[in-house]
Amino acid sequence: MFLEKIKSPADLKKMPTNELETLASEMRKALIEKNSVCGGHLASNLGVVELTIALHYVFDSPRDKLIFDVSHQTYSHKMLTGRNAAFLDPEQYASVSGYTCPDESEHDQFSIGHTSTSISLVCGYAKARDVLGNTENVVAVIGDASLDGGEAFEALNYVGEIEGGLIVVVNDNDMSIPENHGSLCEKLTELRNNNGEIKDNYFKSLGFNYIFVKNGHDIENVINALQQVRDTKEKVIVHVCTQKGKGYAPAEKDREKWHWAHPFNVETGKFISNGPKENYGAICREFLLNKMQQDKKVMVIVASTPLCIGFNAENRAKAGAQFMDVGIAEQNGITITAAMAKYGCKPVFATNSTFYQRAYDQIEQEMCINKCPATMIVTHASVFGHSNDTHHGLLDMALLGNIPGLKYLAPANKEEYLAMLDWSIDQNSEPVAIRVPWTGVTYSDYEIDRDYSEVRYKETQKGNKVAIFALGGFYSLGIQTALAFENKTGIKPTIVNPRFINAIDENYLEGLKKNHSVIVTVEDGIISGGFGSKIAQYYSETSFRVLNCGFSMDIPNRYVPAELISSNGLTPVKITDRILKVMENL
Amino acid sequence: MFLEKIKSPADLKKMPTNELETLASEMRKALIEKNSVCGGHLASNLGVVELTIALHYVFDSPRDKLIFDVSHQTYSHKMLTGRNAAFLDPEQYASVSGYTCPDESEHDQFSIGHTSTSISLVCGYAKARDVLGNTENVVAVIGDASLDGGEAFEALNYVGEIEGGLIVVVNDNDMSIPENHGSLCEKLTELRNNNGEIKDNYFKSLGFNYIFVKNGHDIENVINALQQVRDTKEKVIVHVCTQKGKGYAPAEKDREKWHWAHPFNVETGKFISNGPKENYGAICREFLLNKMQQDKKVMVIVASTPLCIGFNAENRAKAGAQFMDVGIAEQNGITITAAMAKYGCKPVFATNSTFYQRAYDQIEQEMCINKCPATMIVTHASVFGHSNDTHHGLLDMALLGNIPGLKYLAPANKEEYLAMLDWSIDQNSEPVAIRVPWTGVTYSDYEIDRDYSEVRYKETQKGNKVAIFALGGFYSLGIQTALAFENKTGIKPTIVNPRFINAIDENYLEGLKKNHSVIVTVEDGIISGGFGSKIAQYYSETSFRVLNCGFSMDIPNRYVPAELISSNGLTPVKITDRILKVMENL
Repeated sequence: MFLEKIKSPADLKKMPTNELETLASEMRKALIEKNSVCGGHLASNLGVVELTIALHYVFDSPRDKLIFDVSHQTYSHKMLTGRNAAFLDPEQYASVSGYTCPDESEHDQFSIGHTSTSISLVCGYAKARDVLGNTENVVAVIGDASLDGGEAFEALNYVGEIEGGLIVVVNDNDMSIPENHGSLCEKLTELRNNNGEIKDNYFKSLGFNYIFVKNGHDIENVINALQQVRDTKEKVIVHVCTQKGKGYAPAEKDREKWHWAHPFNVETGKFISNGPKENYGAICREFLLNKMQQDKKVMVIVASTPLCIGFNAENRAKAGAQFMDVGIAEQNGITITAAMAKYGCKPVFATNSTFYQRAYDQIEQEMCINKCPATMIVTHASVFGHSNDTHHGLLDMALLGNIPGLKYLAPANKEEYLAMLDWSIDQNSEPVAIRVPWTGVTYSDYEIDRDYSEVRYKETQKGNKVAIFALGGFYSLGIQTALAFENKTGIKPTIVNPRFINAIDENYLEGLKKNHSVIVTVEDGIISGGFGSKIAQYYSETSFRVLNCGFSMDIPNRYVPAELISSNGLTPVKITDRILKVMENL
Repeated sequence: MFLEKIKSPADLKKMPTNELETLASEMRKALIEKNSVCGGHLASNLGVVELTIALHYVFDSPRDKLIFDVSHQTYSHKMLTGRNAAFLDPEQYASVSGYTCPDESEHDQFSIGHTSTSISLVCGYAKARDVLGNTENVVAVIGDASLDGGEAFEALNYVGEIEGGLIVVVNDNDMSIPENHGSLCEKLTELRNNNGEIKDNYFKSLGFNYIFVKNGHDIENVINALQQVRDTKEKVIVHVCTQKGKGYAPAEKDREKWHWAHPFNVETGKFISNGPKENYGAICREFLLNKMQQDKKVMVIVASTPLCIGFNAENRAKAGAQFMDVGIAEQNGITITAAMAKYGCKPVFATNSTFYQRAYDQIEQEMCINKCPATMIVTHASVFGHSNDTHHGLLDMALLGNIPGLKYLAPANKEEYLAMLDWSIDQNSEPVAIRVPWTGVTYSDYEIDRDYSEVRYKETQKGNKVAIFALGGFYSLGIQTALAFENKTGIKPTIVNPRFINAIDENYLEGLKKNHSVIVTVEDGIISGGFGSKIAQYYSETSFRVLNCGFSMDIPNRYVPAELISSNGLTPVKITDRILKVMENL
């Protein structure tokens, strides 16, 4: 086996080119086997095996800087840069993360997880290189879909002002996470169909030299193209056509499903588990499809993450013109949503917690200053969302919760979620965001309100001395804490489902003062700037004690949710102890 | 006078085209006269007089939707849509805002102040129109520089998926606020020089039909072009060449200076006042120029707002290759800054508080997760920054102050600002943002620290019972409040300059508990999620009282700073009363 012997790119460079194809097969096999056990970004990694070999064959990393956009497609890169054991030895499978990680290797330039930043990063490297008089190559490797993100354009546009050379490898696999969208995607198709020769070439229109590589799985072909541009003083696009899922038949066939694959049976191509049958994606989709059918003003807009609300290809087709995927372009998605609401439609935008970060300005300005009555669904907003530093869902309450004019709701269970969604879609007075409780589907044991115009917290258990405000996905944790506390002290605490993340129910808070002396807030996000901070501020001028329970800002590169919960003192037992400590000093 | 008689676009449409040039002269005269008294966006408005007349002549607003990007160039639009008195009658000069404002007129679709959103907005309108079966025209009017912003590209790219027609008028005046940057700008020059006929046309590469109008000041010419596209079912770019500052010689000559003009003498073209001689722009520039000369690793990066740190054309030339303007593209600017810091340079990025909103994700991900030791200067971060809802500087502490891994500093005076800047540029361990105290230049009466690695608050007056934490630009307000309080009560309060917006000096806060019972925080920003919220959270489990003084999230469309300060209870007398009220309940 060649792969075992590759401890660094230097070992790769010693191989004759006619052995590289065999190496590629070994790598592909390792990818499929590891992913069948662990899950992971399978289809995108299968597509870039040959391209990655060629990159390391031609360039001299880490002297030459290879920067991979999103970096979810760097499994092959990791195999060739001293981390092959993480793909060959099942006991070491967990030794590497799913993205580039400078702590793992000097070949990984940045921790990256969001799209469309790689060309900016190589611009910065190139500029620094030129200023300091260095001469190495700087290379961005970016998928076609990442070119949809505005920052990729900003950087392509700015490249002209860099003095020295700079290389952008466009890995064109004709896909985003679902199918691609937009005019650029059509132009790339035209380029693919015309051997790279068309009128009005987007890249040339921005001043780039342009090289077309028809078959990105022909290693020698790709090596030749890259050798041609190595040490260039120009700005060059190398447009490499690849096939997402290449070499594993099920993934070639259904590229969206295999973009991120659950553990699977290699023989049958069947996922071993698809996750829980009832999940908030499917629940939301069924509700929205029904609502859209009843009212053609209801529109659903996503930014390349339709599955976060369960819209697979079949359901997107069902929704027809009422469903829009703007590509990986959250700024445009939010602004379109705002304008549609202003016009009189009932638009619902949805994406993951972490991707809302791309559109703060558009939410604050176009959406909220203009009071556009749109709905924004925030998924994966939890310690359980994605468990790494670039994708976790712990910041959105501090981010969206301090925007003037935005109502940010936190349903605690299925019925409440749907009631809030229903209310929000039909109201026409304010922008609303809804934080889906990403801790598993639960059901209400109290009567659900239908109207969320006015800020009213919901008391679900009347007690005394201590009141536990258990927000959204952590409502169950609040219930469990109340039980643990009552068992230990004999005091029955009040339990509150606040429902409103960023608005104060003054009447309720004033009323609590009579029989309570300690308020406990429990939230599935950082406490800095979050829900609890508003309760702490409300009572800060009084003798009332407030204990904010949530996450610190110290979030590791990768984590196990249960461990992070425990180290932040967020178990029923630990919170009970914390309450008792506060009570000692009353 | 024609202008006086125009009460709505209907009156304009009745005019024969041969009278329109006279109307344009009258409008231009009104623009110059009003601006000479009030200040305003003069050069950009002078450039679009004829274009605006043509738009209202051809289209049928408000049925047809005209959406102006940034909307700082809509003075002529306001004149033609029922608001001519605001430009003709000095007593009514203040009756309109400087941007489109739906509260003023049904012809204003949105409150807009940030760039590059207009194409997204028309996409949303067009989609809604098509879904509801309507047929009106939707038209974006966007300046060439706004095309640099990533969102404009995202929308241009998405337009292909809209069913019906959509028109984008590119107002090409060959300028951003300063000169233009990037490859697109070069291509527009090529188009101007070749009568709109070139290879690899950017707009055509994104699937647009393209119409070129060589002289945007020839009204009939522009009218003809617009009539040609009215009611189109296609997606069309109308590229109109105009001259920024047209018709006022000093503004034609120095377009950057006259982009936003201070009140001026019409005859001489001299500004009546340039603002205070000593200002933080000039102070920062002199410091940076000196630092750059000593160390070629020091780089300054801006996103089309070089004047926020005093870099006019002359000083940009002085800085040479160590100065970069990435255009109106904050995402790219921040990511480039992060990469340069990672590489080993000492980059300093600067822009206004409100424009950091565009790059939250890049700051959180590329900059902070990667611990890139760059410096970000935050200007206009104050109630005194810009006094309207789209540009005020009151949100940045809630935005940047809750980002893991970012050190956010608030200097209180000139010496402290420069010491922090100096420290930040030379350190190489963490990303740092510095909030310039935008309340006027003040000087230190205490010894300034040189090192800000460790979080230590600065006590500048030892007192007892009450401690006033006076942050950054509101440090003076804290001092005045301390005096007012002492005069009224005889109690000398402790005064603290916290310096660190988002980090806790635990030792200091613990120490305070001995002789104090009330902490007062005073900050020039919203209190929700801001500095004071962290102090309130710190003490929330104790009997310690914390009074957070700052702004509520209720920020008007336009405001007078002194009035907003007063209505938020932020005068020394009002804060004193608030402290006394807290003390009553001790």
